[in-house]
Amino acid sequence: MNNSLGLVGEENVKMLTDLYELTMCASYFDNRKLEPASFDLFIRKLPPNRSYLLFAGLEHVLHFIEKTRFTEEHIKFLKSQGFKEDFLDYLRNFKFTGDVWAVPEGTIVFPNEPLIRVTAPIIEAQLMETFALNTVNLQTTIATKASRVVYAARGKPVIEFGLRREHGVDAGMKVARASYIAGCAGTSNVLAGMKYGIPVFGTMAHSFVMSFSTELEAFRAFAKTFPDKSTLLIDTFDTIKGAENAIVVAKELEEKGFRLRGVRLDSGDLVSLSKKVRRMLDDSGLSYVQIFASGDLDEYRIDELLKKGAKIDSFGVGTKMGTSADKPYVDIIYKLCEKVDGKGVFQPIMKLSEGKATLPGRKQVFRLRDAEGNFVKDIIALEDEKIDGEPLLVKVVEKGRVVYDFPTLEEIRERALENLSRLHEKYKQLKNAAKYPVELSPKLKKLIRELRRKLKKIEGLGAD
Amino acid sequence: MNNSLGLVGEENVKMLTDLYELTMCASYFDNRKLEPASFDLFIRKLPPNRSYLLFAGLEHVLHFIEKTRFTEEHIKFLKSQGFKEDFLDYLRNFKFTGDVWAVPEGTIVFPNEPLIRVTAPIIEAQLMETFALNTVNLQTTIATKASRVVYAARGKPVIEFGLRREHGVDAGMKVARASYIAGCAGTSNVLAGMKYGIPVFGTMAHSFVMSFSTELEAFRAFAKTFPDKSTLLIDTFDTIKGAENAIVVAKELEEKGFRLRGVRLDSGDLVSLSKKVRRMLDDSGLSYVQIFASGDLDEYRIDELLKKGAKIDSFGVGTKMGTSADKPYVDIIYKLCEKVDGKGVFQPIMKLSEGKATLPGRKQVFRLRDAEGNFVKDIIALEDEKIDGEPLLVKVVEKGRVVYDFPTLEEIRERALENLSRLHEKYKQLKNAAKYPVELSPKLKKLIRELRRKLKKIEGLGAD
Repeated sequence: MNNSLGLVGEENVKMLTDLYELTMCASYFDNRKLEPASFDLFIRKLPPNRSYLLFAGLEHVLHFIEKTRFTEEHIKFLKSQGFKEDFLDYLRNFKFTGDVWAVPEGTIVFPNEPLIRVTAPIIEAQLMETFALNTVNLQTTIATKASRVVYAARGKPVIEFGLRREHGVDAGMKVARASYIAGCAGTSNVLAGMKYGIPVFGTMAHSFVMSFSTELEAFRAFAKTFPDKSTLLIDTFDTIKGAENAIVVAKELEEKGFRLRGVRLDSGDLVSLSKKVRRMLDDSGLSYVQIFASGDLDEYRIDELLKKGAKIDSFGVGTKMGTSADKPYVDIIYKLCEKVDGKGVFQPIMKLSEGKATLPGRKQVFRLRDAEGNFVKDIIALEDEKIDGEPLLVKVVEKGRVVYDFPTLEEIRERALENLSRLHEKYKQLKNAAKYPVELSPKLKKLIRELRRKLKKIEGLGAD
Repeated sequence: MNNSLGLVGEENVKMLTDLYELTMCASYFDNRKLEPASFDLFIRKLPPNRSYLLFAGLEHVLHFIEKTRFTEEHIKFLKSQGFKEDFLDYLRNFKFTGDVWAVPEGTIVFPNEPLIRVTAPIIEAQLMETFALNTVNLQTTIATKASRVVYAARGKPVIEFGLRREHGVDAGMKVARASYIAGCAGTSNVLAGMKYGIPVFGTMAHSFVMSFSTELEAFRAFAKTFPDKSTLLIDTFDTIKGAENAIVVAKELEEKGFRLRGVRLDSGDLVSLSKKVRRMLDDSGLSYVQIFASGDLDEYRIDELLKKGAKIDSFGVGTKMGTSADKPYVDIIYKLCEKVDGKGVFQPIMKLSEGKATLPGRKQVFRLRDAEGNFVKDIIALEDEKIDGEPLLVKVVEKGRVVYDFPTLEEIRERALENLSRLHEKYKQLKNAAKYPVELSPKLKKLIRELRRKLKKIEGLGAD
């Protein structure tokens, strides 16, 4: 890929997988182990300071399952890596034939709740692991982070501005998507605007101001081009002088029948500067001119600014949100929860390891609401249990075919905002939030007790 | 992009830009500001604990400059966003015509050193900013992090294992590339193997072991498929019992004329477990069986393990390296350093702001070595200065055409390893490393003094 952008097209994404998925599958195939099994994709624990997770990324997982294929180029490469002909023939015709249940994107979820549950011949279930983890990790990490930033902004619009420091091209797109789902009002990413319909926003850089002889000249030039939607960056030299120049231009615009949209602060003490600039604007009869702030912002900083009374109308949030800088991943895993025994019967299984235990069997998550519709608690139960609550997992793939009516991005966003509005304030605090109750159903607990006993017995035997 | 993987192809990457690049350019165009200017891409400061940066990502920037175009779909979308016809006509025919100088990938660099220097009509220079920052940020962040992990491993191979939690598809590829440049021995990412020729590695997951009736059965099945290259994951139930089972399989392989390649530890106290397992293997005449370790590793943890005498032969390092988890970005920026004055003459310019000052003019970085070839110090100078050192920036684009003879990935990796070997130990310590000396040349210092005086005078006037 020398002298190329090295971008991955859909035709190659099937190979974006850890090699061990393929070596395991080759061995399953070699040992005629083709029976079905069930896997859960879930998040083991909450990242620091997070008290919930906002699930995103499902759409791309389902497309990966249904649409991607191995090509002859892939087969040739795998052959060069020592894979055998019969397995390669199998891959040539590879197609997912199983069932998938999943939580809709934009749903608030919690650790240990299955988010995607796959029941399929074990090779098929295995070959979707890496991609599913990759895209759900990114989008859920960012949606969760962005929802906190939006919460901290108390209804003032937040624009996602992080493209330049997000991790590559795909992240640039998926971060814009996930942030929008989480309630951001838009993005700076033009391609995300074109492809996803997310509103795009942009102002100007310091270089624009510096490239003219004076700041005033730069502001006039910009206002000439965008008389009805200019936001002027006023901190290149001195924010107060910048505000004075912006006021001059705003008045000139008024004479022509236009209104300056806003001024942008990008450095310095945003609390005192925003107050001063607000007063200057108001004193000049420009109370309609908005103050937009940016510069190293995240949920903690925005919360602090607003607590201190900063006069800011909207925020541009970049790197720290776009990389989820304080924790750039979630502890996401994909674990076997059920396999077929010698008699061809599905048997729930689990890992016992301390801190790495998994929940056995095919499960469903039930969400209980109070009379007002607010979330009260979740119960993780076995699939066939009758629990008086809303089941979160829905069937999305049946016998390899997607049976899910994909929501639009706007619908996903609405679900997210509804979910966030139904989560009590105490669970949304930026630090030291209360722990939302997630329980295991009686039947699931009983199953775990039984399996523990059985596994201990087997372990005892193994030690003989 | 509903029901799609939402991957960005080369045909659309031109639009992967912050909107403000386009609004600024529209205004430059509108104001007939088409003269050239120079920009520096550089990193303002070192991330915590880092004492150098390993530069990567240039290849993709150059391809972006030379090859990407605006399409009619892009123009149509921009029109819907309010851009004017004459500017859209300009974009239709947009082509970069300027010059670019850059540091080769795999070079060790330091804060404030220009890494990419662009001299072009200001619109052209502006329209590459977002993509250049995006890919250099990702690849340099990861190459730097990975070089630290490789350093901590003291010559023992490090395999990049992070695909499942890297930020999307493009990051999955670019992280594999950057880690390999930094000295990793390979990756788990099969597509990176196919596209970049990076060696791919893989073992098995816990689910593989759990899907069989017993661990021994799972090991035998895997060894049957890969008799000459099996690494068995031995911690699914109990690492010591797992080692016993691996020894059984190793002996069975020996009878068939094969050798077990290794065992993998993925949890628990890796120091004591690796010592015990090493002794068990050695006592069974299996000193050739390697111990591979993984599980939440990074440079700090590997250093600690090896200091405590862990018997580990190679490492699989995932999430923390693949996201550079302790600091998932570098403070990378792209700043105007030179513009054309009213008389058509290039004039160096700079920003004075505290902590955000920039260096004026077209610059070159000179690296001084001692008699043994080790790095002594760097001098940032004006382009035309004669300094007795190796100039780091080379011409890579001339009048819009790439004139750079792209090195292969192996050559980039060799440069990185040579560079790292030439950097004194004291500059490579994982924490509290010495500060490598980077000086400004006398001429550059003099220019800065002059510009400061001039800017203060202008500011003084502005305040009148």
